[in-house]
Parts: sequence; C-alpha cells; structure tokens
Amino acid sequence: MDDKKLIGIDLGGTTTKFAIITPAGEVQQRWSIETDILEDGQHIIPNIIDSINHHLDLYQMKSEQFIGIGMGSPGSVDLAAGTVSGAYNLNWEGTVYPKRDIEAATHIDFKIDNDANVAALGERWQGAGDNDPDVTFVTLGTGVGGGVIADGHLLHGVAGSAGELGHITVQPGGYLCTCGKRGCLEQYASATGVVHIARDMAEEYSGDAQLKFMVDDGQDVSSKTVFDLAKDNDPLASKVVDRVCFYLGLALANVGNMLNPKYIVIGGGVSAAGDILLNGVQKYFEENTFPNVRHTTALRLATLGNEAGVIGAASLVLQDQQE
Amino acid sequence: MDDKKLIGIDLGGTTTKFAIITPAGEVQQRWSIETDILEDGQHIIPNIIDSINHHLDLYQMKSEQFIGIGMGSPGSVDLAAGTVSGAYNLNWEGTVYPKRDIEAATHIDFKIDNDANVAALGERWQGAGDNDPDVTFVTLGTGVGGGVIADGHLLHGVAGSAGELGHITVQPGGYLCTCGKRGCLEQYASATGVVHIARDMAEEYSGDAQLKFMVDDGQDVSSKTVFDLAKDNDPLASKVVDRVCFYLGLALANVGNMLNPKYIVIGGGVSAAGDILLNGVQKYFEENTFPNVRHTTALRLATLGNEAGVIGAASLVLQDQQE
Repeated sequence: MDDKKLIGIDLGGTTTKFAIITPAGEVQQRWSIETDILEDGQHIIPNIIDSINHHLDLYQMKSEQFIGIGMGSPGSVDLAAGTVSGAYNLNWEGTVYPKRDIEAATHIDFKIDNDANVAALGERWQGAGDNDPDVTFVTLGTGVGGGVIADGHLLHGVAGSAGELGHITVQPGGYLCTCGKRGCLEQYASATGVVHIARDMAEEYSGDAQLKFMVDDGQDVSSKTVFDLAKDNDPLASKVVDRVCFYLGLALANVGNMLNPKYIVIGGGVSAAGDILLNGVQKYFEENTFPNVRHTTALRLATLGNEAGVIGAASLVLQDQQE
Repeated sequence: MDDKKLIGIDLGGTTTKFAIITPAGEVQQRWSIETDILEDGQHIIPNIIDSINHHLDLYQMKSEQFIGIGMGSPGSVDLAAGTVSGAYNLNWEGTVYPKRDIEAATHIDFKIDNDANVAALGERWQGAGDNDPDVTFVTLGTGVGGGVIADGHLLHGVAGSAGELGHITVQPGGYLCTCGKRGCLEQYASATGVVHIARDMAEEYSGDAQLKFMVDDGQDVSSKTVFDLAKDNDPLASKVVDRVCFYLGLALANVGNMLNPKYIVIGGGVSAAGDILLNGVQKYFEENTFPNVRHTTALRLATLGNEAGVIGAASLVLQDQQE
C-alpha cells in the first residue's frame, strides 16, 4: 500500500481542482478544470470522470495504483450513500450520485464530504493544524464555514451540521442571515459581512476617514479595502475591523470553551488580511475564554490556501481506513 | 465477560456514591458514604478502598468478577495517569493518585474522569441520551458543568477543558465569574446565577410582585423560590426565568450550531424546575439555531438524577474497551 496514491478532488462552483497525493500528504500532480454548471450541472460528474481517466493515461497510471478518491462538494452530502443534494451553486437541484458514478467509471473507491469539512481535514493534516487530533477550522469567504476535528474524528453530528460555525449566533436579534435567523457569525465575519458592518458604521460615523469618503462617494468597497485602510490606520476602517474581530473572537472563544482544541485555524479569503485580523481576534478570544482554554488553545492562520481542499479530500480515504 | 460487573464511584464534596452495575447498565447494588475531607482529604481514598472491599465481602464477590472500577471526581483529572489535582472542595491541594492506590488495594482495573463528564456519559448511556453517539449534557447546579459526546467519543480537548459549558460567554462584559472572566453561562444559569439575576431585576422592578417583596424584605430567595413563583405567574419571577432561559437557550443553541447533537440533555438541581425551564429554553434555542439544527437537535431534561454519576463512572470501563 505504501506506494499507492490518493486522488483528491475539490469541487467548486467555478473550478474543480484535482491532485494526486501520497499517503504521506505529498502532492505529486495537480490540475484543474472549469466546472460546467450549465444544463442543471449534468456535465459535472462526467467531466470529472473524463479528467481523471485522461490524467491517469497521461501519467501512465492504473486504478490499482490508487487507494481511493476523496472529494469535497458543496451542498448537503450523505456520506454513507455518497450522494449530494441541494448544491445550488452547481445547479444541482435534486440528488446527484458521485460515488456510484465515479466508482463505476474509474474502478477506484470513492469517499465524499462537504467542502468546508474537507478543507478542515486538509489544514489539520498538512497545514496549520500540525496533524493534531483536536483542530477546529473556520473559513471566512463569501460565507463562513467550518469543520471540527475532535479526538481525531471529523464531526458531523446527527444531521451533518456539526462544524457550521457560520451560524453561531454572535448577536442575538442582529443582522438577518440567509438561513432565516438573526445574528449569525457569517453576517459579521464573511467578506460581505465586513462590508455590511462598514456601511452601517460609515453611516453613523461623523469624523474624517477615507473609508467614509469612499462609502459616501459610492465607490466599490470590499472586505480587502476595509482591511487595507485599517492597516493604514484609517480611523473608521480600524473601528470596523475591531467590530469584526470582536464577533469572530467571541465565536472562536466559545468554540474554545466547548471543545478546547489545540488549534483553531482561520482560513478563507478574508484571512488574507493576516496579522491585523489574527491579533484583533486574539484579543477578544482571550477576553472570552476561561483560563485553561486561553492558555492551551491557540489561534492560527491557515497555511495551505487553495490546496486545503484537494489535500483534505484525499485524506478522506485515509480517515476511513483508520476507523 | 458477560456475567462480570462494573463498579461506579461518584466522588463528591459531601457524599461518595457507589454502585455495582452490569455491562448492560443495570444497577444491582447501591450504597454511599460520607466524604471525609478533613486533614487535607487524606482519608478519602482509603475510605473508598475500605468501602469497596467491605461491600465485596458483604456480597461475597471477588475482584475477578469485575471488569473494572470507574470514578468521577471533582478537580482536574489526568486520565492517562489516573491522578487528580486541584480538587479544592475535597481539600486536595496537590496531586492525588486514585488509580495507583485503588488498583493496588482492590486488584481491579480503574478508570477516572471528571464528574461532569461522567454524568454526561451516564445520561447518554442510560438516561435521556438514548445511547446516541452525539449527546451533549449540561448540568445546572451550584455551578454549571457539562460534557460532550460526539461521534461516540467523550471529548476532552487538548487540556481536558472540552465540555466546560459553564464558561461559554453568553454576555460579553457581563457578570464576573469565579474563573476571572466575564459573562460566563454559569453566572446566569446556575442556582446562584438565577438568584443573582433575581436580585438585580428586583432592584429595577417597580411593579407589584411577591418575588420583589421577598427580596426587599431580606427573605431567603433560592433558585427554587424563583421558579416556584414563576409557575404561579409572579410577574417579576417570570421575567427572571425568561432571562435565565434566554442565556441558557443562546448557549445551547450555539452548542447545536457547532456540534448538531441528537440530544442536549439538561440536568442538575436547577433542572428540577422542569417544563417551565425546558419550554423557556426551547424558545430561545429555536430563535438562535439555524434550520437544520433546529429540526434535528432536541433539548431534553435529564432522567437519571443523582444516579447519572455512578452509572456514567462505571461506563468509563466500557468506553475504554471500545476504543
């Protein structure tokens, strides 16, 4: 088995990434294709199959040389059945059968989990998580997702919603979330949440600040704009970042208080802001954790970036063997 | 192994409870002794050993007839070493060696974990948790404790603090906790927390209410007083209970959002209030969970009462065998 390989697939709304990885986590080959979501996304799985078979030909490899294929997918994933439903950004309205179809066409064992869980496994295995048995991952992108590995197990809960850190209530009665409830972390710490806070604070802000000028002037303001201005000590942008860090710090403190992981790893596009985010969150994390957690649970920025998905997806195959 | 038995010990600050239990969870014998915390608690372990050996003689049983002994203890427990440190309510200032001493004197394998974790295991196994792999337990007593069983594993985290639900921050900057930080659930949902809220709300309350009269009159007001008055529709007591339920509902909603357990079981003395507590908490739980969790994670009152500890302690022996 030692010279057998893994295939990791990170299925996203615009790109599908692939990698061939050793059981030790070394990425040997990487490629990607566009995700063709036209015609109800019916080409997505056939395109994945074609791409795998094409690359195995290219590298002169056979299915017997692989322990398995792991994939991360948007939507609601049924692990046992290997199916996905309600992946609206792929135009998959009904239930799709990646495991059945990919196993039949490649003759390689196939495992699947949701995209945030898979990224959590990746960061835990080869990234900032140091392969520790207790790692929580939060990803700050257009939305906020996450995954919890506790005592070496990726948690799913009774209905697959464990690790949905984006819906932690950080402000009861606060901003309305797409999930229908109010005050979700996602509304305060995603890229859109940062901009939402910026616009609301700009409206009330009476001082002189570049961020206020840009908002009032109708210019495009992104999460990156806000963090960049804060790095330049723009007074309003600094207040916005502080607010974002307060909510994220509170949510992650409560992750710490409940789970006491070794690391809480912060990834996703918003985390590219780097130390200004990490240091701000650290302050509120410390304020809201009790001493033993404050001293033993560490916050870290993710290190794998885009590769977390394929690496973590590949590791699904190994996780399964360990249990 | 099938006719071998387990011994469960629930070591508390005033009483130490014992039970002989079958591997199927049936309690066959129960007894208890006073916990003698005098002289730095040095008599506690010898008394436990004497009591076990005395009862084995009484029941004409031998050490070979037992799979193991499990114990729940206050303080900070080192599972692997089988030691306890900082159990101040037992007057144990330094490190104590229950595993070493009890195994040497009884010739029966010994496992230990902290008291709230052990109660969680008990309620999960034989109580309201229906032996599901995903159960979170919160106990509302003088303080607030808890335990998390996820994917069939009792979680400890990197430094033993997983499941410390009493220190979830529910009100940033709120009441000061004995742990040194502010806004801990324990300050709002323990027996003392309920009274604290009652006194603060009574001070601001201008209407006519029995609870206000009692507080102003300097009468003894307990958590039970507050819930009993609320059941009789005392307007202030109802507001206090609603406040308690808001904080507990928010905390448990976030347990749900992070872990999506099948059941969150509410135990401890305060939970004796029953449906008035459960229904109040349910309202805020629903307000603060996202739909998939709201529909799949259920709140329940504990059913084992005082027996949760000995039953869960005994199950430590079985847990260990499963892993």
